[in-house]
Amino acid sequence: MGDSDDAGSFVRYGIEDRPPLKKSLLLGVQHYLTMVGANIAVPLILAGALGMPEEIVPRFVGTFFVVSGIATLAQTTVGNRYPIVQGAPFSMLAPALAIIGVVTVNPPQGVAAWRAALLQLQGAIVVAALVEVAIGYLGLVGKLRQYLSPVVIAPVIALIGLSLFNSPDITAANQNWWLSGFTLVVIVAFSQYLDGRSTLFKLFPVLLGIVIAWVVAAALSVAGVFSPGAPGYVDLASVAGADPVYPIYPLQWGMPTVTPAFVIGMLAGVAASIIESIGDYHAVARLSGMGAPSGKRMTHGIGMEGLMNVFSGLMGTNGSTSYSENVGAIGLTGVASRYVVQVGAALMLVVGFVGYFGQLVATIPSPIVGGLYIAMFGQIVAVGLSNLKYVDLDSSRNIFILGIALFSGMAIPEYMSNVGSASAFQEGLANTAFLGPVLGTDVVANTVFVIGSTGMAVGGLVAIFLDNTVAGTDEERGLTAWAESAEADTDFASAYDRLVADDEPARAD
Amino acid sequence: MGDSDDAGSFVRYGIEDRPPLKKSLLLGVQHYLTMVGANIAVPLILAGALGMPEEIVPRFVGTFFVVSGIATLAQTTVGNRYPIVQGAPFSMLAPALAIIGVVTVNPPQGVAAWRAALLQLQGAIVVAALVEVAIGYLGLVGKLRQYLSPVVIAPVIALIGLSLFNSPDITAANQNWWLSGFTLVVIVAFSQYLDGRSTLFKLFPVLLGIVIAWVVAAALSVAGVFSPGAPGYVDLASVAGADPVYPIYPLQWGMPTVTPAFVIGMLAGVAASIIESIGDYHAVARLSGMGAPSGKRMTHGIGMEGLMNVFSGLMGTNGSTSYSENVGAIGLTGVASRYVVQVGAALMLVVGFVGYFGQLVATIPSPIVGGLYIAMFGQIVAVGLSNLKYVDLDSSRNIFILGIALFSGMAIPEYMSNVGSASAFQEGLANTAFLGPVLGTDVVANTVFVIGSTGMAVGGLVAIFLDNTVAGTDEERGLTAWAESAEADTDFASAYDRLVADDEPARAD
Repeated sequence: MGDSDDAGSFVRYGIEDRPPLKKSLLLGVQHYLTMVGANIAVPLILAGALGMPEEIVPRFVGTFFVVSGIATLAQTTVGNRYPIVQGAPFSMLAPALAIIGVVTVNPPQGVAAWRAALLQLQGAIVVAALVEVAIGYLGLVGKLRQYLSPVVIAPVIALIGLSLFNSPDITAANQNWWLSGFTLVVIVAFSQYLDGRSTLFKLFPVLLGIVIAWVVAAALSVAGVFSPGAPGYVDLASVAGADPVYPIYPLQWGMPTVTPAFVIGMLAGVAASIIESIGDYHAVARLSGMGAPSGKRMTHGIGMEGLMNVFSGLMGTNGSTSYSENVGAIGLTGVASRYVVQVGAALMLVVGFVGYFGQLVATIPSPIVGGLYIAMFGQIVAVGLSNLKYVDLDSSRNIFILGIALFSGMAIPEYMSNVGSASAFQEGLANTAFLGPVLGTDVVANTVFVIGSTGMAVGGLVAIFLDNTVAGTDEERGLTAWAESAEADTDFASAYDRLVADDEPARAD
Repeated sequence: MGDSDDAGSFVRYGIEDRPPLKKSLLLGVQHYLTMVGANIAVPLILAGALGMPEEIVPRFVGTFFVVSGIATLAQTTVGNRYPIVQGAPFSMLAPALAIIGVVTVNPPQGVAAWRAALLQLQGAIVVAALVEVAIGYLGLVGKLRQYLSPVVIAPVIALIGLSLFNSPDITAANQNWWLSGFTLVVIVAFSQYLDGRSTLFKLFPVLLGIVIAWVVAAALSVAGVFSPGAPGYVDLASVAGADPVYPIYPLQWGMPTVTPAFVIGMLAGVAASIIESIGDYHAVARLSGMGAPSGKRMTHGIGMEGLMNVFSGLMGTNGSTSYSENVGAIGLTGVASRYVVQVGAALMLVVGFVGYFGQLVATIPSPIVGGLYIAMFGQIVAVGLSNLKYVDLDSSRNIFILGIALFSGMAIPEYMSNVGSASAFQEGLANTAFLGPVLGTDVVANTVFVIGSTGMAVGGLVAIFLDNTVAGTDEERGLTAWAESAEADTDFASAYDRLVADDEPARAD
């Protein structure tokens, strides 16, 4: 470290750089390992809610990784071309769990309840995703860009990280705190203290942290210090017992079914995921040493996320969105290479299909994931806040907007969580004087509940409203400084520009 | 607004300014109203845990306000002389509740359980506070100053606000959300949109918000829309039934008793409150347009907080510390006048002794307090983050430290809260392999639990360790820019300097 005062101090490998293959493979593994915890967590939460039979769960998890691999390859080649991994979004979990709850209480005859619910979920995702495709490619998100200042983007990105503070992998009461702490200390040691000693330490703090902690946990498990079921236990036997290859293909669980009320809930989830993705785009641009994304690039990013959500609905997973975890990893390691992310994506495909690999990765115990998360999510928080460098921090309107956006982004989801469920929330709204009949409808109540449960969506909406209505100059809001470094629409060449329209000057980014 | 790019844009009345008496009275009321919610919450929580008889509770609450009034007057005249209100700290609630739990399970004979527990609490506070007096006046906190950079102070202040995101006044499931929202909207409207229309709106957004929302709530209560017991209900009858004057005096509940184990827990609470106060000093200095506080000023601030904690122990309350709520109010209104805070303190004394006034204020319903909190606590978060203006936000070590400090300051307290209690935590530590006998002791377990439950303490310790050990230049860490604006020890004249040592040049701040 020590080399500060230069916007490129984050970057060790830029977005266009291709590290040597061996190094890229290891860097790809590291990217993969940073996203694996979340991308396993989502299907396991769903499988539990669905009551899915045990023997189907590994294939279900594998499907998520296959979708992630394909979506990441699509986004990095014909999408926005940022080095962001795609994975299953947490923002779409709330509507998914609501749908599952309704369907499994009264399953249709002649089909297992879990399958009926999953097909409803798939149908809702496909239709909601088609709306996202339209929002994306019609350029609505790109038009939004003029209303986004660093005063808005900073709290949105910060809340992506902050709102994960209560991940069970970190805060469960029965967690193995010393194994989490050990993982974190190893990552901190390699990335902050020993990074000057060796390029290896510089580039692979996450990989080293996970592998070293896993070896310790595996040794303690074999030695019998950790017994089966204890947090930290590494179940090596499960790897030998895994299926070699899973049959994963579109419509594998049957034909999705569409129910309008479910689509509405899922649309709210998609809206929240769009806000998160816009935050991620800005974060990765900042970390890659590029200017703020152009409207055109956002258009192609969200459009492609929509297409990949349609795909995920057809495959039978819970959607696909830009993954913040990997943004954290880019910040920590300075490796922003798109090529490395693509190598990681190829790995996801392999791990998705091949049971042995998937099961090996699944042996990483929760406390290790928790230690990793503290480093990753913290990184996202601070990358968000680093956008404040453009903002006048002596302006009381900026202070007010930032504060109320961050605070309400934490407080409102906590309120929703205390209320408990979309249906309880709807009941409460329906009893409101005067406005009850309007507020209590499915559309309003579901939308407000899902958006309100998503910290970055709450913070983003509060910030975008206040920042665009409370008086403030462009200098004060950071728009002037930001515009200087932002990319123009012509800086981004879409797949169409590059491959079809040959009158367009060829640009590689 | 609009007048940016000038460090004084926060300030409408500076620290030495004395607005006209009538205006000062209203501004004092406003300061008082921002702290009243928290300063009522602490005694009510304690009274509930103590099982204190109903008829004694109003006098107990009154005692808290008398202590706050005297402590504020002492701090603003012979302490650090910052315009900060003093009130009962949340950081000392955790050890207090632990003490109460232990004593009330096995109360001594011949004395009511609540009184025995309260006297133990008082004894623990008095002894712990004597240690704080020593820490303060021996200059230990002042010496700490050289290790504090904006990279440390920013997350500490931000966490003071952020960690309050789940205040029940905001997030309770049965909260009246539209009354909270209405209060917040009124405050935002006056402070951000209508502030150019009238000086009144500029200076009194909080007072106007509370009064308008209270009138609405009172009208709905009288009209029967809010029934007794509903959130939002204003119990006007309770005011008429209040005692005229409470007899409040030192040792009113008897002679405090001292138990060493209880003192240790309380010491951890005191340590957390010191960290919070250091954050508050920096926040108020920033908002008052002054440089970062000198070591000498911090010495006198913490020393005086210790003395006032001794006093609070003798009076029978749960300690006294700098109140962040009022820091938020200074940010929102730009009124940093010390005189105004002293007027507010005089008011606290009146309200503490006179039952009618205390009861009238106690009729402010919880949803209104919740709306107020969102504005106040958000303000604190952002004031903390505004210290980042001194920091190199392109430095990956700064990003890493900021992120991990903020994130762990949210995550670790959540873990402690999931564990549930100091005794459960101690039990868990005692079962740790190898280190169990050390970690499971009262001293270690209690200290770690109380500090770990306090977000700003966790974030502050993480940041101060990393910022002082990970390589980084003074420019990068913001020390250079900060030092330029920081005050020197000679800028602060203690009471001794001003009143006794007449060879010292007279300075008024």
